[in-house]
Amino acid sequence: MTEQLSTLEKRIALLEDIEAIKQLKYRYLRACDNKEGEVLRDCFVAGSVEIDYGRIGKFSRREELMEVFERLACHDHIIELHHGHNPSITVSGDIAQGIWSLYYHQINSQDSSATQLGGQYNDEYCRTDEGWRIISSCFVLHSSQALNYSEMATGSLSGRS
Amino acid sequence: MTEQLSTLEKRIALLEDIEAIKQLKYRYLRACDNKEGEVLRDCFVAGSVEIDYGRIGKFSRREELMEVFERLACHDHIIELHHGHNPSITVSGDIAQGIWSLYYHQINSQDSSATQLGGQYNDEYCRTDEGWRIISSCFVLHSSQALNYSEMATGSLSGRS
Amino acid sequence: MTEQLSTLEKRIALLEDIEAIKQLKYRYLRACDNKEGEVLRDCFVAGSVEIDYGRIGKFSRREELMEVFERLACHDHIIELHHGHNPSITVSGDIAQGIWSLYYHQINSQDSSATQLGGQYNDEYCRTDEGWRIISSCFVLHSSQALNYSEMATGSLSGRS
Repeated sequence: MTEQLSTLEKRIALLEDIEAIKQLKYRYLRACDNKEGEVLRDCFVAGSVEIDYGRIGKFSRREELMEVFERLACHDHIIELHHGHNPSITVSGDIAQGIWSLYYHQINSQDSSATQLGGQYNDEYCRTDEGWRIISSCFVLHSSQALNYSEMATGSLSGRS
Repeated sequence: MTEQLSTLEKRIALLEDIEAIKQLKYRYLRACDNKEGEVLRDCFVAGSVEIDYGRIGKFSRREELMEVFERLACHDHIIELHHGHNPSITVSGDIAQGIWSLYYHQINSQDSSATQLGGQYNDEYCRTDEGWRIISSCFVLHSSQALNYSEMATGSLSGRS
Repeated sequence: MTEQLSTLEKRIALLEDIEAIKQLKYRYLRACDNKEGEVLRDCFVAGSVEIDYGRIGKFSRREELMEVFERLACHDHIIELHHGHNPSITVSGDIAQGIWSLYYHQINSQDSSATQLGGQYNDEYCRTDEGWRIISSCFVLHSSQALNYSEMATGSLSGRS
């Protein structure tokens, strides 16, 4: 019966891992929206990482991403939504893969523009003493749609800031 | 071994609780879209609740929310989408906390306007004899984008009604 | 104690089934976005299916859906997002029901139009030797919003193709 218990424990641990990895990604996406640089940084491993965000840049340390994040996103006139969709998580031991679809929405209240885009993350996660962390994240843009409201009489934008 | 079984049971129960709470919130959001006032009401506890929906109002009884819902939303010309994203659920005993991002989309076919907005729910849930229910829900608006189609020759809106 | 183990095993299996069915639907939606006809086809059972996609058509074999998919969607100028939301999955034995909200976004780069729509899937799944598959899927359109960018100086669209 000990063997049966051990088998059940492994199945539970797998479900727990999947939920923990989802919560990790959601914490990351929410940190982007709420402009919490420290929380964002803490979603990645402390050592060498592989981040490829296309036009935004490539980064091999989480501090580099955090710096770009604070330079590009952490302004009152940039209001963003990052929503993670269609997650597919595969765990093997202390490593996991994740595929996510992203819905992104940005209001720039300075130039009165609204942009929404879709894309896909291909992630790798690793188990650390503090829980699961992102070790690799590659984002591929799928499509984007932008509107400038400054010349439109028929629309309006607003952000909380 | 009874102790081991008990430990496993608790871990399973936690995963079940998280899934049940997600399904509760999804039922609530879908009830909003489908204009099912009774289903919406039943997502909250019967007694005292704490609902703070910003501009929509504050409510201390689920019946008050239901009344406002029927007055504001339950019209053929109001077509809404409520999509819950980035869920983070934390359970401790018979109480749980939930953070959700919302994507909301509304078509008003009377004035030919389309509005989409983002925001965040901070929820508290409690375990009842009928399952998990919302006991507290605070919504904070993040951003909104509106377009009026009545003066645009280049777009169209349609709802199922 | 064998009985207790068996009860725990059933509870774990239910959680695993729910996760597997979600991943099936996400695989399907992602296959639509990535124009992977073979992956899309493999999400359905091999025999008789019941697919009712409204204006797109009704299909009783997965090959029929795949054919329409390749005819309508598999073009460089059609860039699509299918995001599945608010899932509610109910399993009983080897059959399961699923309710999903859909957010859909399409860019047609040929006529410079962007369309987004919301709707609801009512699905039935069955357990096969290869895992869960869709046996029935009925989609009901909820609302849609379209913009034509060809006559607008104030916006832009782009797809990866």
